[in-house]
Amino acid sequence: MLSPLVSSVARRFYCSSRMVGKNAFIVLAEGAEEMEFVVSADILRRAGIKVCVAGLKGTDPVKCSRDVYIKPDLSFDEALKNGPYDVVVLPGGPAYKVLAQSSEVGALLKEQEKANRLIAAICAAPVVLKSHGIGAGKEVTSYPSVKGEFEGTSYKYNESSNVVVDGNVVTSRGPGTAYEFALEIVKILLDEAASQKVADALLWKK
Amino acid sequence: MLSPLVSSVARRFYCSSRMVGKNAFIVLAEGAEEMEFVVSADILRRAGIKVCVAGLKGTDPVKCSRDVYIKPDLSFDEALKNGPYDVVVLPGGPAYKVLAQSSEVGALLKEQEKANRLIAAICAAPVVLKSHGIGAGKEVTSYPSVKGEFEGTSYKYNESSNVVVDGNVVTSRGPGTAYEFALEIVKILLDEAASQKVADALLWKK
Repeated sequence: MLSPLVSSVARRFYCSSRMVGKNAFIVLAEGAEEMEFVVSADILRRAGIKVCVAGLKGTDPVKCSRDVYIKPDLSFDEALKNGPYDVVVLPGGPAYKVLAQSSEVGALLKEQEKANRLIAAICAAPVVLKSHGIGAGKEVTSYPSVKGEFEGTSYKYNESSNVVVDGNVVTSRGPGTAYEFALEIVKILLDEAASQKVADALLWKK
Repeated sequence: MLSPLVSSVARRFYCSSRMVGKNAFIVLAEGAEEMEFVVSADILRRAGIKVCVAGLKGTDPVKCSRDVYIKPDLSFDEALKNGPYDVVVLPGGPAYKVLAQSSEVGALLKEQEKANRLIAAICAAPVVLKSHGIGAGKEVTSYPSVKGEFEGTSYKYNESSNVVVDGNVVTSRGPGTAYEFALEIVKILLDEAASQKVADALLWKK
């Protein structure tokens, strides 16, 4: 185990490193669906994308939806200092309610949208986009239980695709579609070959 | 955040609770493949199986193979006190080398085998079984890169199935087969309907 100081410096360097390729900001809040979080972080890192796991409430281990405890790399505020990020990823799970009410998350998403950079949300997290007025008019999908959130809005709801891409917004349906979601992000930020290479190494077949 | 004392007591209760159904012991060591770990823990908990995440080196957050930090529920030794467990699960990733050399892991697996309780290993972790002389003569699979470990042994190697069940030993191939692996464990410990119910909630289709 590295000393706390060395560890902190090493992690900050890791998060801020942009020497090669792209970078990603993944928001981690209490109640996040741990499969959706981990599959995204792992697959993006396998593709060589620099991932920063940003803890909305700091760097203490975060209790996820099925009681797995995950330690963020940096606090949300510290992670922001290393931006901008090529993609902001929002895992689902009950955490979506916290993200939907967070003015910090709202400000980050608005900046990301203004610069036409990628925003990716899975499961219940597409509701966070709606709450902060992001991607209005775009085609989206989500976990079926929150489909009603999009009724009577400008969003076009797609209930047949596992992953939906409309401009800079990527949405997906649930834990069972997390691999396709993360591989799609890799495809957009890098290319089809990079995404396929990771899929092959995972032994993943759609 | 709960105080450390309350948190410790609550977690011990959680791990030791056998009021309903089955229980599982998942070993977490540095270098574990985080998707294989999290998918297993999450899916088993969704099925109502009591999961204890046992840290081989204690309860500090464990650095997994793609730098996700996960905090165990209990140390390996503390978790053992709450046994026996209906299944011992070994995630893959570079951690398999540590597990293969651990006399504590060997002793747990031998006890598990002697009592004919379930042992489940994915990716490179089936090599841990071989290292400790577990399941000799049984049919197994693994991540393709470690297939050679089974050549010239009594194991029957299956390279076409994503999940192989032979008696009390379940093996699987890699991160991309983790959902099938975990759902198979649920099917064995509970039943087909319980497994299908979780798969449906995940929006998982094979």
